[in-house]
Amino acid sequence: MSTNFRVLGIAGSLRKASYNRALLRAASELAPSGLTIEMVEIGNIPFYDGDVEAQGLPASVQELRERILAADGLLFATPEYNYSIPGVLKNAIDWFSRPPSPPSDRKPVGIIGASGGNGGTMRAQYHLRQVGVMLNWRTFNKPEVFIARAQDKFDAEGKLTDEATRKVLAQHLQEFYDWIALLKK
Amino acid sequence: MSTNFRVLGIAGSLRKASYNRALLRAASELAPSGLTIEMVEIGNIPFYDGDVEAQGLPASVQELRERILAADGLLFATPEYNYSIPGVLKNAIDWFSRPPSPPSDRKPVGIIGASGGNGGTMRAQYHLRQVGVMLNWRTFNKPEVFIARAQDKFDAEGKLTDEATRKVLAQHLQEFYDWIALLKK
Amino acid sequence: MSTNFRVLGIAGSLRKASYNRALLRAASELAPSGLTIEMVEIGNIPFYDGDVEAQGLPASVQELRERILAADGLLFATPEYNYSIPGVLKNAIDWFSRPPSPPSDRKPVGIIGASGGNGGTMRAQYHLRQVGVMLNWRTFNKPEVFIARAQDKFDAEGKLTDEATRKVLAQHLQEFYDWIALLKK
Amino acid sequence: MSTNFRVLGIAGSLRKASYNRALLRAASELAPSGLTIEMVEIGNIPFYDGDVEAQGLPASVQELRERILAADGLLFATPEYNYSIPGVLKNAIDWFSRPPSPPSDRKPVGIIGASGGNGGTMRAQYHLRQVGVMLNWRTFNKPEVFIARAQDKFDAEGKLTDEATRKVLAQHLQEFYDWIALLKK
Repeated sequence: MSTNFRVLGIAGSLRKASYNRALLRAASELAPSGLTIEMVEIGNIPFYDGDVEAQGLPASVQELRERILAADGLLFATPEYNYSIPGVLKNAIDWFSRPPSPPSDRKPVGIIGASGGNGGTMRAQYHLRQVGVMLNWRTFNKPEVFIARAQDKFDAEGKLTDEATRKVLAQHLQEFYDWIALLKK
Repeated sequence: MSTNFRVLGIAGSLRKASYNRALLRAASELAPSGLTIEMVEIGNIPFYDGDVEAQGLPASVQELRERILAADGLLFATPEYNYSIPGVLKNAIDWFSRPPSPPSDRKPVGIIGASGGNGGTMRAQYHLRQVGVMLNWRTFNKPEVFIARAQDKFDAEGKLTDEATRKVLAQHLQEFYDWIALLKK
Repeated sequence: MSTNFRVLGIAGSLRKASYNRALLRAASELAPSGLTIEMVEIGNIPFYDGDVEAQGLPASVQELRERILAADGLLFATPEYNYSIPGVLKNAIDWFSRPPSPPSDRKPVGIIGASGGNGGTMRAQYHLRQVGVMLNWRTFNKPEVFIARAQDKFDAEGKLTDEATRKVLAQHLQEFYDWIALLKK
Repeated sequence: MSTNFRVLGIAGSLRKASYNRALLRAASELAPSGLTIEMVEIGNIPFYDGDVEAQGLPASVQELRERILAADGLLFATPEYNYSIPGVLKNAIDWFSRPPSPPSDRKPVGIIGASGGNGGTMRAQYHLRQVGVMLNWRTFNKPEVFIARAQDKFDAEGKLTDEATRKVLAQHLQEFYDWIALLKK
């Protein structure tokens, strides 16, 4: 059994200086030995449209599907827009989940998020967990990572500097590693 | 006080033959006297991106904002994608809700939906209701319109033919009218 | 039209020194002129059991129903237990909602809450809002009152001392008053 | 490694002829070889009250905790009351989850439900799944068991007679068995 796992990191924001992109970079740095986090971009995926799908999956969706299929797990870092999942992130999910054989089926999944406001993306994360029931993700529970007032936790270069947050993120990633290892046995 | 109200109908699917577009057409036909439902398209709105927003609101978003502002209410007809709101619909909301002065603030809102599967878009509708708390929508409750097995309720031309469904939709629209009238007083 | 409104305050905790009981006391003190908040106890209501109901509604449930019916609105102050509504509060709702003619139908409703942990009862409040869709409550939206780290906001005698929290609570109550007045017109 | 697993079945209704009690009996009958379902009653547990807890856990709660601790998993069969979890079921959870060392931590969990109305307890089940995030349950996803119009699926003696429902329940239980086995390895 391999003890090196590759996780695909998906940020829910397109903004270059997004806290959630920065959060994935921090996750990559804080991941335990044996856990590699690779980034994937979702901004080049078109809007889901059944009429487009009938012509075949767009190349950008095909590529995303293949990267998901090859990964040992998925790590979503999501902002909260209007008390739910950002449309742009949900749209990428709406595409890669299309039949046949959704590539994320039974994958171990972690969910984290950062926002400027109240709750630290909690509302978006529970909606995303419900999406994961449909897609048969094996989303683990704890520790949850809810980063509120992100502007106080990251510095101007987008480095996660808050020590308490770094610690809970490192714990989340260790738990993710153990979860993948448990399910792979 | 005007007793003629204009409601903006927003379908959550881009597909031409979408059940939810067909549902808005049925709503337009079944609306009580004094309630007009106008359609708006959301497929031409780009993905929400804070970097794009910093350059100014796209023209398509401006236009959507103005139409919302001018309307007496909003009627969402949403499919359910992966147990939640379609990304394309959520993205339109993510744009039109941007400050300053979100145009949907305090608007009366109705939510209906049709899908092929279980629950009749129930899961998407509750997520959308939660979005409406953030945006301060005055979403009314009942009767809820959950159309399951849509393929049995609409004919091949997209006409809503199921009598029981037509009846509950008409009741929903009457309640919507009364709700707008009550809040306008 | 009367401009004095009586709202029934329902706390979701049985504990004598409960933060949410203390929160209702603070609400009573901070309510605008014309809004009176009366407390009701739910600890004497038995567990909902359809076999018991078949024998007739318990006297404690009858009394609660009558007080709800007589009130101009309901104000729930709820803790969050295990990311949802406390069982004891949900049980009282399960009883008073029984047919025929649930007494809370179309009542204006406010929801607030205090807890020691993360999110300030946010998760419980969204579940309670969903319950309100079923019961046809007219729950208003904003400002939401999420009191986290309640131990820092109340003093040892259960007085709400945090100024920022007092201010948002007062705004919530003013909005509640205006909401009742709007719907009564 | 043991290949015989004992699961504790918890019904969310107190009614003697409850569909959800009947559903647990059907589950016991349809469980694959190696999976035993034992029933536990929750009607004798008092309302959760922090002042009572300060005097020590009630004997009924202690017993429930021990039975949960000894079980290889939990199977909840829940009705839907007012679009959420029944108060009586939530109350039992509110008690057994108290620190230290909640006995359900990391337990494999299955959730099923039957109701007379729309959605087949879907809304209650998603609320219960969210509770499980707090309690660190390992709740599996599929197949979900949503039994709507229960009066047509059970006979007068409470036997689950609908063949399609029996089949999906048997699949759920096989998946539960496999899930426990996977996590035990």
